Amino acid sequence: MADFPPSLERLLHELGKLPGVGPRSALRVAFHLLRQPAENSQALAAAVLEARGRLKPCKECFNLTEGEKCKVCESQGRDKTVILVVEDASDVAVFERTREFRGLYHVLGGTLSPLEGRGPSDLTVDALISRVKKSPEVKEVVVATDPTVEGDSTALYLQQLLKNVKVSVTRLARGLPSGGDVDYTDEITLLKAYENRKEF
Amino acid sequence: MADFPPSLERLLHELGKLPGVGPRSALRVAFHLLRQPAENSQALAAAVLEARGRLKPCKECFNLTEGEKCKVCESQGRDKTVILVVEDASDVAVFERTREFRGLYHVLGGTLSPLEGRGPSDLTVDALISRVKKSPEVKEVVVATDPTVEGDSTALYLQQLLKNVKVSVTRLARGLPSGGDVDYTDEITLLKAYENRKEF
Repeated sequence: MADFPPSLERLLHELGKLPGVGPRSALRVAFHLLRQPAENSQALAAAVLEARGRLKPCKECFNLTEGEKCKVCESQGRDKTVILVVEDASDVAVFERTREFRGLYHVLGGTLSPLEGRGPSDLTVDALISRVKKSPEVKEVVVATDPTVEGDSTALYLQQLLKNVKVSVTRLARGLPSGGDVDYTDEITLLKAYENRKEF
Repeated sequence: MADFPPSLERLLHELGKLPGVGPRSALRVAFHLLRQPAENSQALAAAVLEARGRLKPCKECFNLTEGEKCKVCESQGRDKTVILVVEDASDVAVFERTREFRGLYHVLGGTLSPLEGRGPSDLTVDALISRVKKSPEVKEVVVATDPTVEGDSTALYLQQLLKNVKVSVTRLARGLPSGGDVDYTDEITLLKAYENRKEF
């Protein structure tokens, strides 16, 4: 595709870096923007820069916020006895969407990954431990890292760090996803679902 | 999702306007941008504005260009006897990708659509007719509008306007898409494929 004008090539290149945007969707998005009034492109560009400029990690839990603390930490109505540890701020959004979890969060900033050179100091592990230690009201730390090798070992690492602190450390349940199909379930999930079976 | 900081809400709103970007992909893209260095967001915003600012329709064929004429119109190696009429500049990209078509293009800017209030004056129809009339080298006009009711009636309209000009007006073939499956083909396509059947 060497035949596009340079500014269009650059736009396609930048769009192509976004997750889930392949060459074809980049073309589609680019031509959409070019067809729309210039104000739409300006609004998009401004929104990108503004979000990037204003949002920063919450002082307490590292969720995204424009102020010092995020809305969850500032809210009076949250259950301060439970901290849910998630990998990314996007996971906070997912849990908030359930409208059931009323505790606090802690955003790790990823998982431990020796292969990618990510150790505890690249995550907010220290902040979590000292946060738990200095908050006697915290009774439970729920580790909600991804159900992957890296997520599991990160969870195990946190559990060991918190062993000497008087909190219970739990991990999200493993089993069949709701609406799923036993036929199409991979063996590991099926095995975990069997191991964790519950009485009616 | 009333719980996001305002600048993130605005970014999600702007991303959500893009084609093929639902609420979930908007979240994914937004968090991706927020995780990446600020330069990436700046590069994206700059690319959007630059493309929107620099690209304009080619004087000759209304394809996108940064100069007066697009690369196809300026190229010496193109077959000037054929003009392929397409709806949008994105269709030019699709035909160029085949690397087979070597003629010129004409970008209509859409299709006639009485329902949406788009008449001939909203498209580059007049420019096409006068371009064909003043270019004696043009022998054929291939109408490559979409195989839809609107695309078909636009093609028919162009054919009638060009009836008195000494060029042959053709339309892209209808039939089975390559790699398709007869089982899953809709009746109209199947009928067209039958009607247009060819001897070996």
